[in-house]
Parts: sequence; C-alpha cells; structure tokens
Amino acid sequence: MTDAAVIFMPSGKRGRFPVGTPVLSAARALGVDLDSVCGGRGICGRCQVAPSLGHFPKHGMTATADALSPVNAVETRYADKRGLSPGRRLGCQAVIMGDMVVDVPPESQVHRQIVRKDASARAMQMDPATRAYVIDVAPPDMHDPSGDFERLAEALAAQWGVTGLTCDPVLLPRLQGALRRGGWQVAFAVHDDGHMLPLLTGIWADLPPRGIAGLAIDLGSTTIAAHLCDLATGDVLASAGVMNPQIRFGEDLMSRVSHAMLDPAGTAQMATSVRSALDGLVADLAAEADIPPDTILELTLVGNPVMHHLLLGIDPTELGQAPFALAHQGALRLAARELGLTALAPAARAYLLPCVAGHVGADAAAVALSEAPDRSDDLVLVVDVGTNAEILLGNRDRVLACSSPTGPAFEGAQISAGQRAAPGAIERVRIDPATGIPRFRVIGCDLWSDDPGFAEATEVTGICGSGIIEAVAELRMAGLLDASGLLGGPEATGCPRMIPEGRTFAYLLHDGSTSGPTITVTQGDIRAIQLAKSALYAGARLLMDEFGTDRVDRVVLAGAFGAHISALHAMVLGMIPDCPVDRVTSAGNAAGTGARMALASRSARSEVEALVRRITKVETAIAPRFQEHFVAANALPHATAPFPHLRAEVALPEPHFGAAAGTRRRGRARQAATQEDT
Amino acid sequence: MTDAAVIFMPSGKRGRFPVGTPVLSAARALGVDLDSVCGGRGICGRCQVAPSLGHFPKHGMTATADALSPVNAVETRYADKRGLSPGRRLGCQAVIMGDMVVDVPPESQVHRQIVRKDASARAMQMDPATRAYVIDVAPPDMHDPSGDFERLAEALAAQWGVTGLTCDPVLLPRLQGALRRGGWQVAFAVHDDGHMLPLLTGIWADLPPRGIAGLAIDLGSTTIAAHLCDLATGDVLASAGVMNPQIRFGEDLMSRVSHAMLDPAGTAQMATSVRSALDGLVADLAAEADIPPDTILELTLVGNPVMHHLLLGIDPTELGQAPFALAHQGALRLAARELGLTALAPAARAYLLPCVAGHVGADAAAVALSEAPDRSDDLVLVVDVGTNAEILLGNRDRVLACSSPTGPAFEGAQISAGQRAAPGAIERVRIDPATGIPRFRVIGCDLWSDDPGFAEATEVTGICGSGIIEAVAELRMAGLLDASGLLGGPEATGCPRMIPEGRTFAYLLHDGSTSGPTITVTQGDIRAIQLAKSALYAGARLLMDEFGTDRVDRVVLAGAFGAHISALHAMVLGMIPDCPVDRVTSAGNAAGTGARMALASRSARSEVEALVRRITKVETAIAPRFQEHFVAANALPHATAPFPHLRAEVALPEPHFGAAAGTRRRGRARQAATQEDT
Repeated sequence: MTDAAVIFMPSGKRGRFPVGTPVLSAARALGVDLDSVCGGRGICGRCQVAPSLGHFPKHGMTATADALSPVNAVETRYADKRGLSPGRRLGCQAVIMGDMVVDVPPESQVHRQIVRKDASARAMQMDPATRAYVIDVAPPDMHDPSGDFERLAEALAAQWGVTGLTCDPVLLPRLQGALRRGGWQVAFAVHDDGHMLPLLTGIWADLPPRGIAGLAIDLGSTTIAAHLCDLATGDVLASAGVMNPQIRFGEDLMSRVSHAMLDPAGTAQMATSVRSALDGLVADLAAEADIPPDTILELTLVGNPVMHHLLLGIDPTELGQAPFALAHQGALRLAARELGLTALAPAARAYLLPCVAGHVGADAAAVALSEAPDRSDDLVLVVDVGTNAEILLGNRDRVLACSSPTGPAFEGAQISAGQRAAPGAIERVRIDPATGIPRFRVIGCDLWSDDPGFAEATEVTGICGSGIIEAVAELRMAGLLDASGLLGGPEATGCPRMIPEGRTFAYLLHDGSTSGPTITVTQGDIRAIQLAKSALYAGARLLMDEFGTDRVDRVVLAGAFGAHISALHAMVLGMIPDCPVDRVTSAGNAAGTGARMALASRSARSEVEALVRRITKVETAIAPRFQEHFVAANALPHATAPFPHLRAEVALPEPHFGAAAGTRRRGRARQAATQEDT
Repeated sequence: MTDAAVIFMPSGKRGRFPVGTPVLSAARALGVDLDSVCGGRGICGRCQVAPSLGHFPKHGMTATADALSPVNAVETRYADKRGLSPGRRLGCQAVIMGDMVVDVPPESQVHRQIVRKDASARAMQMDPATRAYVIDVAPPDMHDPSGDFERLAEALAAQWGVTGLTCDPVLLPRLQGALRRGGWQVAFAVHDDGHMLPLLTGIWADLPPRGIAGLAIDLGSTTIAAHLCDLATGDVLASAGVMNPQIRFGEDLMSRVSHAMLDPAGTAQMATSVRSALDGLVADLAAEADIPPDTILELTLVGNPVMHHLLLGIDPTELGQAPFALAHQGALRLAARELGLTALAPAARAYLLPCVAGHVGADAAAVALSEAPDRSDDLVLVVDVGTNAEILLGNRDRVLACSSPTGPAFEGAQISAGQRAAPGAIERVRIDPATGIPRFRVIGCDLWSDDPGFAEATEVTGICGSGIIEAVAELRMAGLLDASGLLGGPEATGCPRMIPEGRTFAYLLHDGSTSGPTITVTQGDIRAIQLAKSALYAGARLLMDEFGTDRVDRVVLAGAFGAHISALHAMVLGMIPDCPVDRVTSAGNAAGTGARMALASRSARSEVEALVRRITKVETAIAPRFQEHFVAANALPHATAPFPHLRAEVALPEPHFGAAAGTRRRGRARQAATQEDT
C-alpha cells in the first residue's frame, strides 16, 4: 500500500495521502483545523491528535495499531518534558502508515468557533493581532557578531515569514536570559496589527502552559465587565465585573464631567481610580483562570465617550457642552502601560475601539460591530440600554446612530425601591388584571412569589430595572395606570393594593410580611420610567425620521439589561417603536461581544473602523424634533393596541385618573372605567 | 512693468517674477533657502526677509521703496503679537512690485550649513525626523462630528501632505486645551522617521518662540557630553558635559559589568544613575539655552555597548564574556520616557545608533558615520581613543572595526601624577635632548613653564593623558628611556633629573618649588602607557592584517582626547602605525558629531544603519594575532626612524638601560650610549 485513507474528526474531512505523510501535513492539506506554533518541530505540543483504532463500518475502514508510526524520540522528549496523555500523539511527528481515523481534540483546534453563552450566535473568527511562536534561535557567533534580538528576528522571518520585527523596549532586559534559559529555543509573542511594525511583546524560556491571553473590557459608567480570553482559541477563560469606582465622583456621566470641570485634579483622580479598578480586575481574572499575568498580552476596550476620555486622562469637559467635541475619535493603539495598567504583561498592547461621536462612544461602535446593522437586509433598530441609550438604525444602505439620555431609571436607580440587578431584586412582575394581585420572581430564585416555598427560598430586597419596567407595563395593562401615567386610587380602580402616598397613590407590589421590605411602585417611579422611556423612544423616532421611515422591521435590545427586558412589556411601555413582538430579540452584552471580536480578530478592527466612518451621527441634544418626540412619547400607549391577541380580556374602556387623586370616584376599574374625558 | 528682477542674498540667486508674486514664492521658485512652517499664512514668522533699498551698481539695479507691497494686515497682526524688527517683512505676505534685492537673514534659512567649531569640516544636512508646523484646524461641527485630533490630522494632510498622523497618548490630554487657547490655530511637532506612522509629539497654542530642539548625547564611561541643537537649523544652542555617575560602581567597563554580575540590583542601579544624570543634563542645557524643556523633542544617543545596554536597563553580563553577545544590535527608536527620562518633552523620541558588535558600540558607529571611512578613496585608520579604543580601518571597498582594551592610562588614570584633562593639568611637554631639562604647558594657561610669569599665572596640579604621552615620547627622544621602556638612571643618562625610586628611576618633570606638587614620570607610568599603546597599536595592526595591508594612507584621531594628541609623539610612542605625519588629523569628538548628524538627518540614520551592516567586525579578544601584536608592540620604536628631518640631533646610538638600574654605568647618554647589546 503506497497511500492511505485518513479521516479527521470531528470535521469529517478525508483524503488519501502517501504513506509517510505526517498527520499535521495531511491536516493542513485538507484544511483541517489543527494548531501548531513551533513549525512542526515537536516543541509546542499544540498539534496533539488522538488516533482511533478499530473497525469503522460507517467509513468502511479498519484502523490497525500500526496505522501510525511508532512514538519517536521527539515525542518521547516532549512527553518527558511536558507530559502527553495516553492515546495522544504529536501530529507533526506521527506519520501516516495506513488507513486511519484521527480525532482532533478541541484544545488542538485554533479556529474553533466559540459557542456564545448568550443570545447572539455570531461566531468569533480568530485572526488575533498577537500570536505566540516557539522557535530555535541561532546562538551568538563571535566571528559574525549580531545581537540576540537580531538573530531571533531572523529566525522568525526565516521560519514564519514575519519580517521587520521590533522589540518593545521593556522586553530588552529579558531577552538574553530567556534565550539562555531556553537553550536557544524560546517562546515569544509578536503583536502584528498591520498598523505598526511587528512588535515583540512577550518572551519566555518555555511556552506558557496555558498559552497567551487577552482581555475584552466593557467600561461602563456603573459597571466594568471583562472577559479573559485565550488568544489562540478565543475561549473565554474567565469573566468578571466590578463597580466603576468613579461612581464616588458622580453617579451619572454629567456629574463626572462636572467634577472634572470643578476640580482641576478631577480628571486625574477619575483616571487613576478606573485604572486601579482595571488592574484589580486583571489580577482577579488571571487568578481565577490560573494563568500568569504576564501572559495577558492584549486588551480591547469599549466605553462611552466620557469613560473613554477619562481612561485616557483626557478632561471630558468638551463632551459636556455643545458641540460635544471628542479629543480623539478614531481607534487607538497603544501600550497598555500607557494607560497606567501594570497588572498584565509589561509590553501588553491596548486597542480602544473608535468612538462614533461626542455622545456615541466606542461601546456603540462595538454594538455596531457585533450586531452588524450594516449587513442587515431588513431595517433593524439596535438599542443598547444603559444610563445612556445608544441607538443604531439601519440596513445595508445606511446606518444612523444617536445616543439618548435615558438616565439610570432603567438600571433601578431613581426608583423608590430600586436596586441594581442582583440576587433578591424583583425582575419579573405579573399583575392579574382581574384582581390587581401581583406575582413576581426575584433574581437568584426560580420560584414565583405565589409558588409554595418562595418565602423560604429567597429574600426580596428591591426591584431592578427589568422588574420596574414589567411592573409599570403590567399596571397599565391591568388598568391601574392611565395613559398619562397616573396611578389610580383604590376607589377609582377598585383595587385595594392602590395605597395613598402623599397626594398620589402607590401600588403595593410586596407587603414585606413574608420576606424583606415593603415594596411599592410609586407615582414618582412611574414618572422616572416615563422620562427614561420617552428619551429612548424619542431617540429611536429621531433616527426613523432621519431615515425617512415610520416603521422598523426588527428591534435588537442590547446591553446586559437589554437581555432581561420583556419585549412585550417594553412595547406596552412605549420604550421602543412597535414591531412584531417576535422580531424583538436580545443581543446580550453586545458591546462586550464587540470588544471580544476586536480582541479575536484584526479584520474585526478594520471592520469597526470602517463602519464608524460610514455611520451617520445624529445629535439628539440639538434636534428640535427630539424634544417634540420626547414630549409626545411621555404618554403610555393604549394598553391593548398592539397585543389584542395576547390580552383580549383587558380590551376595555381606557382608565383615566384625574390629576388630583380621588377627586373622581369610580367603581372597580374593570367595571366602571370611563372613556377619557379630556 | 509686468515683471521685476529679484536678487536674493546671500545666495545671489536671481530671477524675474510677475509683479504681485510673494517673496516666499519667488524664493521657492529659485530654490532659495527661506524657511516657512505655517504654509505662508503669516503665522510662523520664519520667512522673514529684509529688502535692501538703493542703487546696486554691481547688479545694475535700483530698488525703490515701493519695490515691495506695503505692510499688510497679516504682518501688522504678526508684529503686534510677536514683534518684527525694523526693516523686516514676512516673505509670505510681502509682494514683489519692482526690481529689488532681498536679504535672507541667517535665522530665516532652514538648511543653513553649520560651520563646525572643531577640526572636521563635515556639514550638517538638515532632514530632521521631527518638524514643527503651524496650522489652522477646523473647529468641531456637531452635525459632522469628528475628533479634534482627526481634524488636526486632516489639516496636516491637506496643507502639508503628511498623512496617517497618530498621536502619542501622553499628548491626548493636552490637545483640546491647546486648540482652544490657540483659537483653532495651533503649533505642533510631528515625528516622522519613515519607520512608524507620523506621530504627534508636541502641541502648543503658539509656536515656541525659540522653535523646537533636540539633544545629541555621547554617553561615555567617564563623561557624558551633550549638545542641545535647534531642530530646524541644526545650530548648537548649548553644550555641556558631566561625569558619568556610574563611576561609583566601577571606573572601567569591566568593573561595571562585574558589579552587574555580583549585585542583582546592580543593573537597575546603574541604569537609574545614568538616567538621572541625563535628566540633569537636559535641565541644565534647557536653562542655559533658555528654552522650555517641553520643546526638546528628540534625542540621539551613542555609547559603547556596556553604556548602551545599561542605559536600556539590560544586564551587561553577556558583554563581559565570550562570545560577547549584544542583546540588541540595531538602531533603537523609542519614546524618551521609555528610557526613564522625564526632563524633556513628555512625547520626545529617542534614537540610539546601532552597535557594531559586542565590543564595538554605537559610539564607533557614530564615528564611522562622521568620518565616513566607507567614502574614503585612500585607506584610512580611524582611532577613537578612550578607555576603550574603537578602531576603524577601511576605504570605499571595505571597512573593518575592532575595539581594543587600552585601559584608562591615556585619560590620565593609573598614572602616578595623572589627572583628568582639567585646568592645571600638564598637557604639553618638551624635553631638551641636550640637557634633559623639561618645559611644559598646563591646561588653562597659554604660557610655557619657562616663560616669565608662568608660576604666577597658574598652578600645576598633575598630568593628563596627552601630557603623559608627550612626556614619554620626549623621554624616549631625549635618550632617557630605552627601547624596552626602561628609564635610565642619572649616571647612565648623565641627566640629574633621573631620580631613584625604589629599584627603578623616575624623571623629575616638575619639582613643585614654584607651583603645585612635585610631578615625576615613574617607571610604572611608562609601563602603563606601554600597555595602553600596545593595545591600541595591536588593534590597528590586527585590522591591517585582516585588510591585507602593512601600511595606511592616513590616520584620524577621534575622541575628545584624540583632539589633543600630538601626531608626532603618538608615532614616536608607537601608538599608531607609521604614516606621513601630515596625514594624521584630529576629528575632535567624532562620536558626538555622529550623534548630531543623526539628530539632524533621517538619511544619516539610514546611512549609519546600512554602514554598520557593511562593517566587518574583528574580535580582538579571541584573535591569537592580537596577542602577538600586543607583545611585539610593547617596545618603543627607534626614536629617530620616522622623523630624521625633525630630530636630526637625536640620531645617535640607541640607549639601553639594564633591567637592574645602575648596574651598567655610562656617561651622558648623548655621548656614551651604546648600541643595543641584546
């Protein structure tokens, strides 16, 4: 037999190869995804495969024990030095001797597509700026003197075709020790993003056992979220979030801008505090993933313009006043240490995604990258809900963007019993329209509040953003709230849970008798949600005007919070324009996904940079129509209009509660509510 | 008259131009060297000219007061803001109305050739990596949002054709303030060296009145010398030198390498100390030149490999042992702050010239750049004398290089009465061969020691390198020293200044009765000089062997010390190979000149980088022939051989003094010295 049939699993790719072909070569010939960073010299161990022996009736093949060459000296050396699991072979050393089936285990696949844990199924394509290499470097020769670095660069050029290598100066002191400890075989990392010469950013006597890693960071006003990812596979090794410590200088963006304006040291204070938090996050993630911090070699960052500028130590004052000028709009490539970060590799590189405009930041750019409205055939509205809402509207032809100052109500702030989304927070609310009696669920517990054992299983601590949105929408659908946003009293509504609170009423959501504090939805809560949703809706409408449309084909809710909003309730509230409820989807933390894409791929960076240039920015702060839409959006739309099929029983006369609560008497709302009389 | 004759002085370039042509345009059309950094908008004031009025019979021209347009509003504005001397006009604003002669004052010339104050007449060609611009930037537009930086970059591309500008991150916080203080007209500096994207490295609301500057630094083991230069003209604004504070860790290179080997913190200590010294030097130079430190935007550095590595924080251990491997050989481009330097502009760039080999550093590369043996038709030996001697030998065909461990004797160290070249040090010595009586001069005084008033005019403190070399050579020529390097006693030589000192003799150079201490030249001094000169000569001979020649056409003595060595005495001593004495020249501080050339010119950087790759390195430490030459060179050549015409009277029988002083008795050497009897 002069050639042999080889089938690679799990891809199923197959081919015939001359006896004597290394498995790695066969894999490459077939386009099978099998890793290797040492050029097939049996050093890196990345090309491990598992030959399967036996009879494979489906493939009409029998693989015998001699289908692969015996374990050779290189493999023995590798196994002695690093260990090799039973049944595993090095694909670069094992040679095909007969028909066989070869399993490529997941850890040997480079371009393994990442299965997202959240809603979007968008895959990570691996094309990272930083790659690891294991290479043999020529030792110095007194008769032909050259620098150790130059010989390393020559080896890289000769063996991998990467030319023009330069050295991060912080690595110069480490170079000679690593080369000598490694016996002139050394592992190193090269950053090559096409915007600067290839740069040596890490060097080790041995390849770090866990490879090299990068961080994708979503720097929010309130929360900093980070994913630590394997730079070869894209795998998320660890994720974590911390509060943004800048909160002590101001809850929202404008108060941080004010702090910078009023205190000459304010910008530096806020820069230092967020940088410290990032360093702490890096250290935590490295510990959690059990990798040395000096193997974290890349960092991508997204955030709104104020967060972006403060991280860079730029006074955000200009962002707080017209014409809202960014200091720097484009993507930024710099050493992570230039951001004051010291917890990761000393030569780690940072990439800040571009901002779109003074009010539309790198977070919106990341959402655009992740959700790709520019590739959509139908007209999609993408809403990233946070303290500010970033809104994108577009399709293949055009993409528009704006931001809208929703304030923190959607995040549970400015709500009487509001809290951040954390265990104990009410996140789901249903109100029986017949009785006005609520049931709810809290974060961290699968039971509804009327399920047996609920009180024992959890403690209710407050209500978070998605909870208050559902509560308000349910109140509206139950007829306990009129179109102007006024809560009815017990007499007008016939609902005894409507309790007086000053000159208005509040709805008793949880009486605290079984668990936690008493939780009500107050008239103030309703107003806060109305303001927030009006701002969001007005921004979306402004973009629709600019686009020249009065309908959208689909809506994507992004943001950690967006993932938990009920599309139905959002539409009842009038947060988003009407569209078929099944065309409203959640994208999860799309900004974080965009940051991960930029971490995984140079072409994603090019894509987002081109995309932000294509996006038409619309400034809400100066658009008279924004104010008009904002005022018009204050009302709560007819509760039943969009969903008659869902809520037939509430298709009843609209309630309207007079400005002075209780001045007009009605029976139970369901029986006696009259038509609006204005 | 529709056109007018214009003559520019001092170039004498002339032409005819249509009436209405701005002077700057006429100058450019003629290739007259007239500066401008604002694109002719009357902002920078660099294009100032002085029209000459009156009759010019030599040119057959009469220039009347109306030959130039009247002072316009732009000039008035400039004069109000910055001041304009009487008779000066802005070349971009003043328009030719009639025949005229225009003087271009020196400060308006960009490419003014620098007249070197030292021996070499090599001119500085200005092609600096960093240039200043004054530019109008579009203010932000809310309806077409972009970053302030992006609008600055667009203006630079549109007005100057410099595309792809990036921003040093440390400048991001300064950008918006400068643009607003400058009213959207701003001065900035761009570093563009062809190896990275153009980089914004300085920004000011107004162009700094003294322009922008750079530093050329020669980092020696003993002395750090720096020139502060105008980056537009190349003018030296200030020069200074300080002791290298690393001396406290070891006088010579090997003792510093030992310190690094023995003390784990040694490398960092030495790096910190030299960086502090550089910062101090920068501050001193800025103060002396009266320029703001943040206008110092470039830095070029040369030094031997140990100095080079220690500055970068690289442990020099490998340089102290075979195979003498450099960590990094090539030129280095980095931010000055990466070198820990904080006294100059925060975004200043540093350029370290390439090293040649483990023993032949960036200082030798700079000497090669400055003295250009690769462009020489005849075979030139370039010797840079210091604690180590760097030696280059070559012509257009080939250039060889080595270094030779001369030790510090040539710098006055290891000499009994030795001292550094400073006021009070004996630097010139003559010994009357008839009487053995010396005369000498000291640094800081023009009188010879036998001139009237010498004792009152100065104080003798010791003897420096050039003084000891002349003393030894003169002793040899006076017949007081034999070919083996032995000093004769008073009886053998007949010279009463030969005084016993232990088992040997010393020569009484200065008896201290009139001024300062008694100064003798001891047998130990002779031995130290013999070792040093043997090393130097052996290195030169080794290169000559490699080149396949036994003669050189000319010799260049470089180094601050080289400038003071007498060619005649150096040849008598056998420091350098024989060649016609008028073909021995001094190049002054050629390493410093090379550093200045690299500061002034990007093409000089390309040149030196190409040159070091062409140079063939010869390692003295492992060449058996070096040892042979070293031993053979120990003798002091026949005193009269090369210079019979100069010293006819000493063409006498050779003295030879037995190893045991006084065991052989002779009359006065001039009468009784016999031929060598070995």
